[in-house]
Amino acid sequence: MRIGLLMIGDEILDGRILDTNSQFLERSLAQRGLEVSYVLQCRDGEKNLAWALESMDAAVDLVLASGGLGPTEDDRTREIVAAFVGKPLVYDEEAWAEIQARFRKTGREAPEANRRQALLPEGGGKLDNPVGTAPGFWVESPRGTRFVFMPGVPSELKRMFQEEVLPRMLPKEGAFVTETLCFGGVSESELGGLIADELKEGGDVRVGSYAQYGMIRIVLTSKGRTEEEARAKLRETAARIQEAGARWYLGRGDRSLQEFVVEACEGKGITLAVAESCTGGKVAAKLVDVPGASSVFLEGQVTYANAAKIDRLGVPPEIIEEHGAVSEECARAMVEGLARTSGARLCASVTGIAGPSGGSVEKPVGLVFIGCGLDGRVEVFRKTYGARGRAVVREWAANDCLLAMLRMLGQKRP
Amino acid sequence: MRIGLLMIGDEILDGRILDTNSQFLERSLAQRGLEVSYVLQCRDGEKNLAWALESMDAAVDLVLASGGLGPTEDDRTREIVAAFVGKPLVYDEEAWAEIQARFRKTGREAPEANRRQALLPEGGGKLDNPVGTAPGFWVESPRGTRFVFMPGVPSELKRMFQEEVLPRMLPKEGAFVTETLCFGGVSESELGGLIADELKEGGDVRVGSYAQYGMIRIVLTSKGRTEEEARAKLRETAARIQEAGARWYLGRGDRSLQEFVVEACEGKGITLAVAESCTGGKVAAKLVDVPGASSVFLEGQVTYANAAKIDRLGVPPEIIEEHGAVSEECARAMVEGLARTSGARLCASVTGIAGPSGGSVEKPVGLVFIGCGLDGRVEVFRKTYGARGRAVVREWAANDCLLAMLRMLGQKRP
Repeated sequence: MRIGLLMIGDEILDGRILDTNSQFLERSLAQRGLEVSYVLQCRDGEKNLAWALESMDAAVDLVLASGGLGPTEDDRTREIVAAFVGKPLVYDEEAWAEIQARFRKTGREAPEANRRQALLPEGGGKLDNPVGTAPGFWVESPRGTRFVFMPGVPSELKRMFQEEVLPRMLPKEGAFVTETLCFGGVSESELGGLIADELKEGGDVRVGSYAQYGMIRIVLTSKGRTEEEARAKLRETAARIQEAGARWYLGRGDRSLQEFVVEACEGKGITLAVAESCTGGKVAAKLVDVPGASSVFLEGQVTYANAAKIDRLGVPPEIIEEHGAVSEECARAMVEGLARTSGARLCASVTGIAGPSGGSVEKPVGLVFIGCGLDGRVEVFRKTYGARGRAVVREWAANDCLLAMLRMLGQKRP
Repeated sequence: MRIGLLMIGDEILDGRILDTNSQFLERSLAQRGLEVSYVLQCRDGEKNLAWALESMDAAVDLVLASGGLGPTEDDRTREIVAAFVGKPLVYDEEAWAEIQARFRKTGREAPEANRRQALLPEGGGKLDNPVGTAPGFWVESPRGTRFVFMPGVPSELKRMFQEEVLPRMLPKEGAFVTETLCFGGVSESELGGLIADELKEGGDVRVGSYAQYGMIRIVLTSKGRTEEEARAKLRETAARIQEAGARWYLGRGDRSLQEFVVEACEGKGITLAVAESCTGGKVAAKLVDVPGASSVFLEGQVTYANAAKIDRLGVPPEIIEEHGAVSEECARAMVEGLARTSGARLCASVTGIAGPSGGSVEKPVGLVFIGCGLDGRVEVFRKTYGARGRAVVREWAANDCLLAMLRMLGQKRP
C-alpha cells in the first residue's frame, strides 16, 4: 500500500509553523512496517488544495491529511474535499452533539460558527477527536483512494491517529512489534559499520538508525504471523545488535541520555549536582526534564563569572590566574568544590569557549573541559568541537557531560 | 511566479530527519515578497523522484529542490533529473577542480567517487557550494519550468541559496526591504486584533505574525520601485503597528526575549542572577545563549531540592514549612537571598509545579511563582499554566521570568 501525507495550511507554507506532524506520522507508520512515499504541503486555498488532492489521488492508495478543519471561513477543507469526491456535505447530528458537549465541559456554549465542523462528506465516516472540537473524517475518491482528514493541532492529531486511524484504517497483516535500543558516545557511522547487515533492507525485521549528538537510537520493527513469532524474530536481531555495540549500550526504550543518568542514580542511590560555565544551565535543565529527577538531583551551579566560580565553588583564584577558567585544572576544581558544598556524590562540571568570540590559538572556540567525580574520584575530558556555532558547542558539551556521568556510573565501558 | 519546494531523501520520509530547510526557504522568500505554493517531499528512488519532478513541473514555474547530491550510488538526483529534462549529463571540469581543491584544503585527496558530483545536465548551469563538496545546478524543463538543485545539508543549502540562488535566480522587480518588530507579554490574538487592518493581504507592505509563548514577532516586507520608496512605505506601516502595540513593544530585529534582557542590562550597567527550581536552569541557559552575556550575567542557582534553597539562598526553613516551596513567599525569599549572596542588582526566581505529578487541589500542576527584584524592590507574579505537560510549563515559566525582568527594567509598561 502506497501512503502519502497531505499537510494543509498557509501557516506551514509561509514558514510560521514547522511541520512536525509529518515526522510523528512517519515514525508511527514505520513501527507498523509502513512507508510514506510522499509528503505534500499545500495552502488552504481552493485551487491549491484541489490540485493537491488530485495529485495524491493519482500517486498513492491512502492519504493521511491534516489541517483546515477549524470553525472559521478560511478553513475550507471539508467543502473542497466534498467537491473533489463528488459527494454532498451532510450535517452529522452526533458530531454536533459532541462538539457542544466538549464546549460545555469548559463551561462555555458552543458558538454557532462551530456548527460547520459537524458537516461531513456523504459516504465517508466520522473520526472522534478526544481532545479538541473538530471531528476528523474519512472518505474515498471515485478511483478508490482513501483520504483521512485529521486536525492540524499536533496534540489532537496524535490522539486521533493513535485511537481512531491506526486501529481502523491501516492494514494489519500479521502482527508487528517494535523495540528501541540506545547507544551512547558512539558515532552513527561507527555503530552503523558494525551492524551493516542488520541495517540492510529486506527481511521481516527492519532496522533504522536515528542519531543525535552523543546518542544513537536503533529502532527495530518486526513482522510475524503472530505476535509471538514477531517477537522471537525481533529478539534475535536485537541480541545481535546489542552484542555488536555492547561497549556503548545504554538500554532499551525511546529514552534520553538524562533519563539514563537519573535512572542509574536512582538505582544506585546516588545523589548528583552540576556546575556549569559555558553550558549555562543546559545540563541542569536537561536533568530536570526528567519527571522525578528531584529524587536524585540536588542542585546546579551556573558559575558563569569567574567570581562565581571562586565564591560559589571555592575554585582557588590561582588556578584561574595560572591556567585560565577554561582548563583541565579549573574543571577539576569545580567538581571538587561542588562536591564539598553540595554534598552530592556524583558531581560534574563544564567549562569552555562556546564562541563566537573569546578564542585564541592555544584555546580555540569549541574547546571544552568536562569534569566528573564520584565519591572523590575525578576525571576530566578535553573536547574540541570546533567553531560550529555557540548553540551547537553548548548542546554537544551538555550531552558529553551526561555521557561522562554515565561512564562514571559504570553504565558504559570507557 | 508560482514557486514549489522539492525536498529529496529517504531520511526525511521515514522520520529520521525533520525538514527545516523548507522553513528557511519559505521565510527567506517571504522577505522578498515571494510565496511558496507547495512543498513536496519525496524518496530518493527513481520512480518517486520522477513523479515528483513531473508534478512540480505541472504546478509551478520555479522549483527549489534539495538533497540527493552526495557522492554515493543512492544519490541519483543528477541522473534522474537529466533523464526528466531529456538532456545528457556532461562532465564539468571546473566543478571537479573545485571539489578537489576543497578536499585538499582539509589535507585529503578527493576520492574518485566524488567525481560523480561534477556531472551536470547539459544546457543548465552550475551553482557554487562555498561550504561543501557537492556543487548545485539549475536546469529548465521542456515546458519552461526552472529547477534549482541544492545540497540537503542545511549549512550548505543556506549559503548556496543566499549567495547563488537569491541574487541570480529570483525575480527582483523593484526593491524589497524587511523589518521585524518584537512585542512581549501579549497574545497573538490580542495584538492581532489591534493591527487587523495591517495584517490583511494586499498592498505593497505585507505583514506577518510569528508567535511563540511570551513574544510576538511582526515581520513587515515592503516593495517599491526603489529601496527608498520601499523603505518609506515600510516606515509608515511599522509606525502604526508600533503605536498600536506600544505597551508591549520591545524593539526591532529578529531577536529573542533573552537578547532584550541582556541588552537592557548592558545599557543600564545592571548585573543579573537567577535562582530556579522547576525551570531547572532553563532561564540561565537562555541568558547564556546570548553571545556576550558574560558582561552582565553573574550566576544562576538551580536550587531544586529544598535543602539547596535553604543552604544556597538562605530561604528561611519556616517559609518552606509554612507556605511550601511553591509559594509567593518562597519566590520572594529566593530573590532576596540571591540578591544577598550574588551581589547582582537584578535577581529573578522561579518555583512551581511542572508536573506530571506533584499537584494538589490548592496547588495544581502548572502553578508557578516568578519573583523579580531590582535593587531591593521585589515583585512576585503568580501564573497558572494548567497541566500542559512538563516541557510546556517549564518553557512558558522561563519566558515569563524573562518578561518579568524586562518589566522590572522598565522596558515594558506593566
